[in-house]
Amino acid sequence: MADLKNDRFIRALLRQPVDKTPIWIMRQAGRYLPEYREVRAKAGDFMTLCTTPELACEVTLQPLRRFDLDAAILFSDILTIPDAMGLELYFETGEGPKFRKTISGPGDVANIGIPDPEQELRYVMDAVRLIRKELGGKVPLIGFAGSPWTLATYMVEGGSSRDFYKVKSMLFADPDTAHQLLAKLADSIAGYLNAQIEAGAQAVMVFDSWGGALTTRHYLEFSLAYMQRIVDQLTRDKDGQKIPVILFTKGGGLWLQELAATGCDALGLDWSVNLASARAQVGERVALQGNMDPAIMATDPQTIQQEVADILAGFGHGSGHVFNLGHGITPHIDPENVAVLVDAVHETSIQYHQ
Amino acid sequence: MADLKNDRFIRALLRQPVDKTPIWIMRQAGRYLPEYREVRAKAGDFMTLCTTPELACEVTLQPLRRFDLDAAILFSDILTIPDAMGLELYFETGEGPKFRKTISGPGDVANIGIPDPEQELRYVMDAVRLIRKELGGKVPLIGFAGSPWTLATYMVEGGSSRDFYKVKSMLFADPDTAHQLLAKLADSIAGYLNAQIEAGAQAVMVFDSWGGALTTRHYLEFSLAYMQRIVDQLTRDKDGQKIPVILFTKGGGLWLQELAATGCDALGLDWSVNLASARAQVGERVALQGNMDPAIMATDPQTIQQEVADILAGFGHGSGHVFNLGHGITPHIDPENVAVLVDAVHETSIQYHQ
Repeated sequence: MADLKNDRFIRALLRQPVDKTPIWIMRQAGRYLPEYREVRAKAGDFMTLCTTPELACEVTLQPLRRFDLDAAILFSDILTIPDAMGLELYFETGEGPKFRKTISGPGDVANIGIPDPEQELRYVMDAVRLIRKELGGKVPLIGFAGSPWTLATYMVEGGSSRDFYKVKSMLFADPDTAHQLLAKLADSIAGYLNAQIEAGAQAVMVFDSWGGALTTRHYLEFSLAYMQRIVDQLTRDKDGQKIPVILFTKGGGLWLQELAATGCDALGLDWSVNLASARAQVGERVALQGNMDPAIMATDPQTIQQEVADILAGFGHGSGHVFNLGHGITPHIDPENVAVLVDAVHETSIQYHQ
Repeated sequence: MADLKNDRFIRALLRQPVDKTPIWIMRQAGRYLPEYREVRAKAGDFMTLCTTPELACEVTLQPLRRFDLDAAILFSDILTIPDAMGLELYFETGEGPKFRKTISGPGDVANIGIPDPEQELRYVMDAVRLIRKELGGKVPLIGFAGSPWTLATYMVEGGSSRDFYKVKSMLFADPDTAHQLLAKLADSIAGYLNAQIEAGAQAVMVFDSWGGALTTRHYLEFSLAYMQRIVDQLTRDKDGQKIPVILFTKGGGLWLQELAATGCDALGLDWSVNLASARAQVGERVALQGNMDPAIMATDPQTIQQEVADILAGFGHGSGHVFNLGHGITPHIDPENVAVLVDAVHETSIQYHQ
């Protein structure tokens, strides 16, 4: 493997000194890029992009050709694991993801197995290997997975949900089944992320998109506990390099202390959280990643530059911050604004690292 | 006006001793009740329900005939004010509310006036007067309005929004216009709530449905500051009775201290907030209203009773808690479960008030 030419991202996650604040963007390989839309149109559907390593590699690299980003993130989907468990993921045009089979009781949970990442999820590992090779050490590659709770919501509801009534009913009416499902998911995810690390991922991130829909008690019991179970199983060193782990609960601003106590290296923050307050709370234990409101990407260069300056000033001096949006970039954003953002972060942050 | 036979709700909001924890339910007059669906079907459309005092009164009273609730809430909509400002509210079947006219710049803000509640919103005041008369002092009547920020989102976006890109762009690109709009809204809402109080509302609540979509800085500047402006203008005593004010920011769990500092009497809490933590933070200054996850209403009586017991134990001994859901009750809930909830709150809470 080639040496890493830009290790700013890894160093910031480990709270080691950097020259500038690193930046990457959630969904940086995505529909706001015309070259992405072109590959996607040729592929025909979203899952073909995910399951064809050459295409996943191509769209992963696209944003790096345009922008001076400090990390690449594997192009994939959080629902590859339930699909590999046999739930048969599909996408209908204009709608979210759906599963042909769902989980509704203990029998369903008993029937699903823990996927072998190099078998059922081989296409992901092949994509990781190919991307690492093609990156040539330019920037590190981030691997990722959905959190157990977040995957469980899709598996029980059969797709996206607004209110999560089915899966929340399971937490109350049949918590044992929920715990069995979440444990199986946590072990599957840990194996999947470790396989990504083995294949070349240099940092990993767990996306808990729906933890914020829970009460505090249920969040701790059904979401955080299973992210902890993942963190405890992850490969944290490989070939003498630390592999940082990032946990991100959207809407989890009330639970930063508990998230930091898992032993992860960094927390992703959505934009509702004040970065200075978050650093004061948990900055001695973890790095922080975020947290610009994605809506700002729809404004103008001057506004973006001002907001970058405010966020960087909020974190203040020293390492331990990876700039990002507080959620994924959306399709109708002008790519020119992304260039403005990336340059503003690099230029404005120098003063905080001297 | 008849004397209040059940003042448990008012007393709890003022943190005065009560015999039992009072309960009401957001959207208690709503589609989960077959008798509501019947009146709604006869009315033809939602706005006819709101603008016809006899119908608004009828659906307001329906849940009180079924359940031992401790308060009635005016049946109306938060968008009556922008409609009265001339934006022409309408509802399309299967979609959310929409406006024929929207606010996009300073000229639009200059063109809207502050509605006279007894003129353009006379139908609301007539409903309040009729409901108070029909209630005959059984329980207190809650008046309400949307928060300035929440109303502004609909007025700028032209309806419901997922990402709030238009209105957030205005906060950045043209904050002066946003401030002018929000100030006009705050003054309109204060006048509207004071007119409701004059007409007979015995407590008022401000619903900030979308404050949680903002960054902390923007929440304080564009949402909280204008709720403060309302609180400062409200009638707090009428005929020797205190008129409690409740502020509710959905997703506002990070900002309880700032909300409590407005001088309101109570905070509404969504279910993500731990009630014991919230009481420890702000319980010396305000009462707390909430905060059961509405999803629990879709489970079974035993689960509902257990959750009620947990929430009541979380608040603990003494007054200052009004039981409610953390958000509105949804259409497919079995009314039998509401009876279970109301009875469980009353019966289980006695021990905390001895």
